[in-house]
Amino acid sequence: MIQFYTPDIEETLTLPETESGHCCRVLRLKEGDEIESVDGRGHRFRSEITLAHPKHTKVRILQRTDVEPARRHKVTLAVAPTKNIDRIEWLLEKAVEVGVDRIVLVKCEHSERKNVNCERLEKIIVSAMKQSLKASLPQFDGFVQLKEFLKGEAEAVSAGDGKQRFVGYCSDEVERRSLAGEYAPGSDAVLLIGPEGDFSPEEIDMALKSGFTAATFGEMRLRTETAALYGLQSVHIANDIAHAHAEK
Amino acid sequence: MIQFYTPDIEETLTLPETESGHCCRVLRLKEGDEIESVDGRGHRFRSEITLAHPKHTKVRILQRTDVEPARRHKVTLAVAPTKNIDRIEWLLEKAVEVGVDRIVLVKCEHSERKNVNCERLEKIIVSAMKQSLKASLPQFDGFVQLKEFLKGEAEAVSAGDGKQRFVGYCSDEVERRSLAGEYAPGSDAVLLIGPEGDFSPEEIDMALKSGFTAATFGEMRLRTETAALYGLQSVHIANDIAHAHAEK
Repeated sequence: MIQFYTPDIEETLTLPETESGHCCRVLRLKEGDEIESVDGRGHRFRSEITLAHPKHTKVRILQRTDVEPARRHKVTLAVAPTKNIDRIEWLLEKAVEVGVDRIVLVKCEHSERKNVNCERLEKIIVSAMKQSLKASLPQFDGFVQLKEFLKGEAEAVSAGDGKQRFVGYCSDEVERRSLAGEYAPGSDAVLLIGPEGDFSPEEIDMALKSGFTAATFGEMRLRTETAALYGLQSVHIANDIAHAHAEK
Repeated sequence: MIQFYTPDIEETLTLPETESGHCCRVLRLKEGDEIESVDGRGHRFRSEITLAHPKHTKVRILQRTDVEPARRHKVTLAVAPTKNIDRIEWLLEKAVEVGVDRIVLVKCEHSERKNVNCERLEKIIVSAMKQSLKASLPQFDGFVQLKEFLKGEAEAVSAGDGKQRFVGYCSDEVERRSLAGEYAPGSDAVLLIGPEGDFSPEEIDMALKSGFTAATFGEMRLRTETAALYGLQSVHIANDIAHAHAEK
């Protein structure tokens, strides 16, 4: 099944240009054909094509469905982009597939990469949402300074948002706890993963002061993008396990 | 730190050709320099270069260490290669990083891919082992017929190897259990993941008769390679959690 992304279908009754092209040029759909789409805000639509235009395909909405989120816990993934951008593109695709609610790319002291093409990454996030048939698009904050990100997190902590915050850190100069042991199923989480060169001591200090717990994600030495996905899945799987045992 | 792969260093006191080239040409190491290497069978070596030859670098072993495995549970990952081989190459790298003991590529009825370059995949497995500083190389069985693989598994079951076996299946015509709920931490596991077109009903029937439990890996619709990694990580994380709580 093909799922289109139509963020403003209810207002415009029109597919975005790229989706119109995919619909008419690639798939050769015609007037009267039915399509499925999501608005990225939790709604799925079944529509009938009324005008098969390669740039501005018009539709009539036949059905609007509120898609219940598959999971209750929300996860924010903040990660320093890797030197090799393919690894981050891969991570974003996988993160969206397994489920993530907010993605932040953070610029760190030891980051080798100074720029990222956020537009391209946004496209990857959208196509991963479509491919995995999700109806909600994760919030993507782009590439921000670590200090800015931590400032916002510290404010959220003082506001008492009750999220659990973990920062993956390699150096054992700081006491670290196991993410698997510390995360409480059901709670929202914020995961922060540093660059290949790890965080600087000052950055870790700042993270701890901003409400993060220094964490290990396992016994293994993992690449940045593997650690990010492993951390994200640790949260999901802790919930899967709690949920499965609650059902027994 | 660079870790070389020297499968037969104890017998030959020589680095393999590729490693010799990396050592002398790329890293420009000379006689008297020290290197670290592993044999892929759980041993790490500290050696001194006695002859810096671009094809046959000779060494003197200074120290041999038995590397204790970071985890007790063993996992076999059997997966049908994806149409796009990059996704399998990526999966193998990640699987080795997070930890896997045996990798089998299975040929299924709905497999679009009929051939794989096992030599290239073997190289990816080796470099992932080196990169993640592991001392043990996972067993790689190459690309085998699903029927052959299941025959061997059924024999292992009758021999009472006590492993838990799960087959990821998309169709809900078969009753499926949650992997997270069924897997018992500490036990060895065999995970079987099908091709993009899923298993055929006959193949699932064969898997069930061979001792596999039909399993869901979560609520999400995942690509083949994402499902494989998610399943593998589910096993590791279930053990991480059990271990962390046992320590408390």
